[in-house]
Amino acid sequence: MSVITTESLVAALPEGIVITNPATIQNYRYDWSRDPDAGTPLAVVRPTDATQIQAVVRWCAANRVPITPRGAGTSLSGGSSAVDGGIVLSMERMRAIEIDTATRVAVVEPGALNAEVKASAAQHGLWYPPDPSSYEICSIGGNIATNAGGLCCVKYGVTTDYVLGLDVVLADGELITLGGKRLKDVAGLSLLKLFVGSEGTLGIISRAILRLVPTQPAKATLVAMFPNLEDAGRAVVALGRVARPAMVELMDKASINIVEDAYRMGLDRAAGALLLIQSDAPGPAAAAEIAMVETACSENGASECFSTDDPAEGEMFVQARRSFFVALESRGTLLLEDVGAPLPQLPALLGGVAAIAAKHRLEIPVVAHAGDGNTHPSIVVDPTDPDAPARAALAFTEIMELAISLGGTITGEHGVGRLKKSMLPAQLGPRVTELNRQVKQLFDPDNILNPGAIL
Amino acid sequence: MSVITTESLVAALPEGIVITNPATIQNYRYDWSRDPDAGTPLAVVRPTDATQIQAVVRWCAANRVPITPRGAGTSLSGGSSAVDGGIVLSMERMRAIEIDTATRVAVVEPGALNAEVKASAAQHGLWYPPDPSSYEICSIGGNIATNAGGLCCVKYGVTTDYVLGLDVVLADGELITLGGKRLKDVAGLSLLKLFVGSEGTLGIISRAILRLVPTQPAKATLVAMFPNLEDAGRAVVALGRVARPAMVELMDKASINIVEDAYRMGLDRAAGALLLIQSDAPGPAAAAEIAMVETACSENGASECFSTDDPAEGEMFVQARRSFFVALESRGTLLLEDVGAPLPQLPALLGGVAAIAAKHRLEIPVVAHAGDGNTHPSIVVDPTDPDAPARAALAFTEIMELAISLGGTITGEHGVGRLKKSMLPAQLGPRVTELNRQVKQLFDPDNILNPGAIL
Ligand SMILES: Cc1cc2nc3c(=O)[nH]c(=O)nc-3n(C[C@H](O)[C@H](O)[C@H](O)COP(=O)(O)OP(=O)(O)OC[C@H]3O[C@@H](n4cnc5c(N)ncnc54)[C@H](O)[C@@H]3O)c2cc1C
Ligand SMILES: Cc1cc2nc3c(=O)[nH]c(=O)nc-3n(C[C@H](O)[C@H](O)[C@H](O)COP(=O)(O)OP(=O)(O)OC[C@H]3O[C@@H](n4cnc5c(N)ncnc54)[C@H](O)[C@@H]3O)c2cc1C
Repeated sequence: MSVITTESLVAALPEGIVITNPATIQNYRYDWSRDPDAGTPLAVVRPTDATQIQAVVRWCAANRVPITPRGAGTSLSGGSSAVDGGIVLSMERMRAIEIDTATRVAVVEPGALNAEVKASAAQHGLWYPPDPSSYEICSIGGNIATNAGGLCCVKYGVTTDYVLGLDVVLADGELITLGGKRLKDVAGLSLLKLFVGSEGTLGIISRAILRLVPTQPAKATLVAMFPNLEDAGRAVVALGRVARPAMVELMDKASINIVEDAYRMGLDRAAGALLLIQSDAPGPAAAAEIAMVETACSENGASECFSTDDPAEGEMFVQARRSFFVALESRGTLLLEDVGAPLPQLPALLGGVAAIAAKHRLEIPVVAHAGDGNTHPSIVVDPTDPDAPARAALAFTEIMELAISLGGTITGEHGVGRLKKSMLPAQLGPRVTELNRQVKQLFDPDNILNPGAIL
Repeated sequence: MSVITTESLVAALPEGIVITNPATIQNYRYDWSRDPDAGTPLAVVRPTDATQIQAVVRWCAANRVPITPRGAGTSLSGGSSAVDGGIVLSMERMRAIEIDTATRVAVVEPGALNAEVKASAAQHGLWYPPDPSSYEICSIGGNIATNAGGLCCVKYGVTTDYVLGLDVVLADGELITLGGKRLKDVAGLSLLKLFVGSEGTLGIISRAILRLVPTQPAKATLVAMFPNLEDAGRAVVALGRVARPAMVELMDKASINIVEDAYRMGLDRAAGALLLIQSDAPGPAAAAEIAMVETACSENGASECFSTDDPAEGEMFVQARRSFFVALESRGTLLLEDVGAPLPQLPALLGGVAAIAAKHRLEIPVVAHAGDGNTHPSIVVDPTDPDAPARAALAFTEIMELAISLGGTITGEHGVGRLKKSMLPAQLGPRVTELNRQVKQLFDPDNILNPGAIL
């Protein structure tokens, strides 16, 4: 095999699009998971339009060079970690956003940040609901490629529910268009939905058409404290039967204390769990819904409830919850979990995680999109403890095994990426794993698109 | 090739499961489209569990016999028309429904009717939203296989948004499980969503896990009359910016008169168009939302508005709208269209259909899920006019061409089936058509699953 040089790639694209400077390349090796196994790419390419993406993919296809599609690099599962000798294809310069108010859609380039899409829509009285905690720093392309969730998806659904159309550059460089500015379309197999959540392994998303809805009404907020996780878990099940809140977040005792250390909100440090719930029912219905939820919490052991219909005050709590990962980062390296379970198994999942933490002598605070049964145990790896990484790796795997044993999933929203792929067959079973491989093979026979992710 | 007899199939299954009696077989040849090209199957098989489905599929695979999966046979696109020498696999006996209230899901067998799932959920204060007009007579398996829409999907989304898990029997008889009782799950490629809308061509759905939500609040209703279709179309766009109604249906002048003939509701027969809009915003918010919608209608030319917050009175109008197809059937044979367009193109689509009707001297009344841009022009084929079928066929194709030219779709919810497959490549383009074929080939290499549908 001849050594591949990037000269012909540089020549194929306008000046400044291909970066080969080693210092800059370093900045594109890792995503937020900081996977130590991330490789060093040959080059970083920052296209400004779809034609340039096609040129890069064609060059990579001809030379069998792996491509790592990269949005904003906030993946928590190693999905955008670079590969040795590959190309990092960064979408950071493709961030045009066009709001079509009559159709109520946003037509966006993949590098646009989620927050930028929300802001553009808001200028027209419209709203793009999906709201990962990282919404200010993650891209729409990354959101689509991971089928990102967030806080409001307990009521409003996840990214796939808002994707009406995609332009995708296939592994041989051809650009296809799937769906369009149509709210309903069942013509042909649903390849559109297959690309959502495909983590860059089937094609490069070069444009998306996203459904928008009218601005969200003002929210009323409830903070409920519980003596223990089990009661909070039961409250989540109970409240979901009578209400459709727009947010049902949970924090365990350790998380409450981490947030309290960072933000001094006056939360009860002795509480075993906290639920943060919002209603966006219109007008007086929000307060009524919050009252129903409060009853459900009280009937299931809440020791204290605080509610407010001041949106600003509510947002303060949400902000604190969102900043949890950032607050936690000061404690050491993190291994972030994203396991989910059927709602009634939430207490068992949370209890099991606590047992795994005790067994391996690890700090594993938990926050959860509890209304969806999706939890984020965060394994803190103490930098002063030489044995901690090995114990953390064991815990990471055991938590996934626990989720599977409860009928749950190893990943509710962050994606399989590179960090979880060894456990995927255990969840899917042999035949579904094989089908995943076959579909990948069909779309990318030479395995150049994000090789090593998912499979 | 040896002649295939059904003896070994009969022997492979318990008594009474395989029907070969020619008179009974006749009843399973056609679906609601009454496609004259429907074939005569070898046998009808009515399994009572997934193991029997597997046995049938294995027998068909071994003998290369085509299978037509059949739910309730209400397809309007020839999707469940039988094939000569094939097997009709009817799900009518598999209709168990289990409501898991803690997880808020329904676990259903495919033959359960949509209305039966709704009724079971309602017993527990829960609601399964998707509501095709045919909900009382169509099956959940058929709904999933077509990704059925309905009246409330303008606010609540379509079938795929509620499918959390599927058991599927593959073309070689192996049963796989996709997803589960998890509200969020991104582990692996989204094969689950690929099966939704696959019209029986990739596998047989033997069980589904469906998401439920709390009971829908009482609805307020608005009936707005317009002098012409253009104004009604503009009102639809305008109201969608300020409100999220739970239903936005449109009827043109011809449809109004057909419904008025059948039900004597006192509708204005001279009106050019009618919008039927419902709000299910909680409590007093419903009336407030209806008031906003009424303003949008008035500002866009509505000649008369009638609103009510009496749910029973509102339901009367909805019932009349739903019964439209049935009322129309007395006029002759029908060719039902299902084209969609981006919302702002709705007036152009409706205007274009009227022009096609005039050109071919045909009666083509239109009802529409207008809030989604999804329209149902119904081509009436006068049985006393020998030339009408040929003119109707031309109009059918021209309406699809019109939709494609407006950036729309040939089918918003009924599926491609057999009646629309010749136009699918024109909508998808060559490469996406080819990808559809390749995915089909991957899942069903011998083409035994609903051959002739979609592709
Ligand atoms: C503090 C914090 C909080 C978070 N909270 C949430 C949360 O609440 N919910 C949630 O779902 N996630 C959350 N995440 C994870 C992360 O933000 C999401 O996975 C996000 O969708 C990734 O977007 P990105 O632009 O950073 O993508 P990247 O990390 O750059 O890439 C992610 C994956 O998408 C692929 N990809 C990116 N762009 C494209 C493209 N144009 N075409 C094809 N493939 C592409 C990559 O190859 C990779 O596989 C959080 C992350 C952080 C750091
Ligand atoms: C009066 C009337 C009104 C209608 N209104 C609407 C509407 O508002 N919205 C809408 O979307 N549709 C509507 N339809 C169309 C039709 O009801 C839907 O397409 C419905 O989803 C079909 O369900 P079914 O059980 O009758 O399926 P069938 O007609 O039996 O089959 C439909 C397709 O699904 C496949 N299939 C069925 N069961 C399975 C299974 N278990 N596994 C794999 N494949 C399977 C079949 O092979 C076929 O391709 C209407 C029909 C009528 C007659």
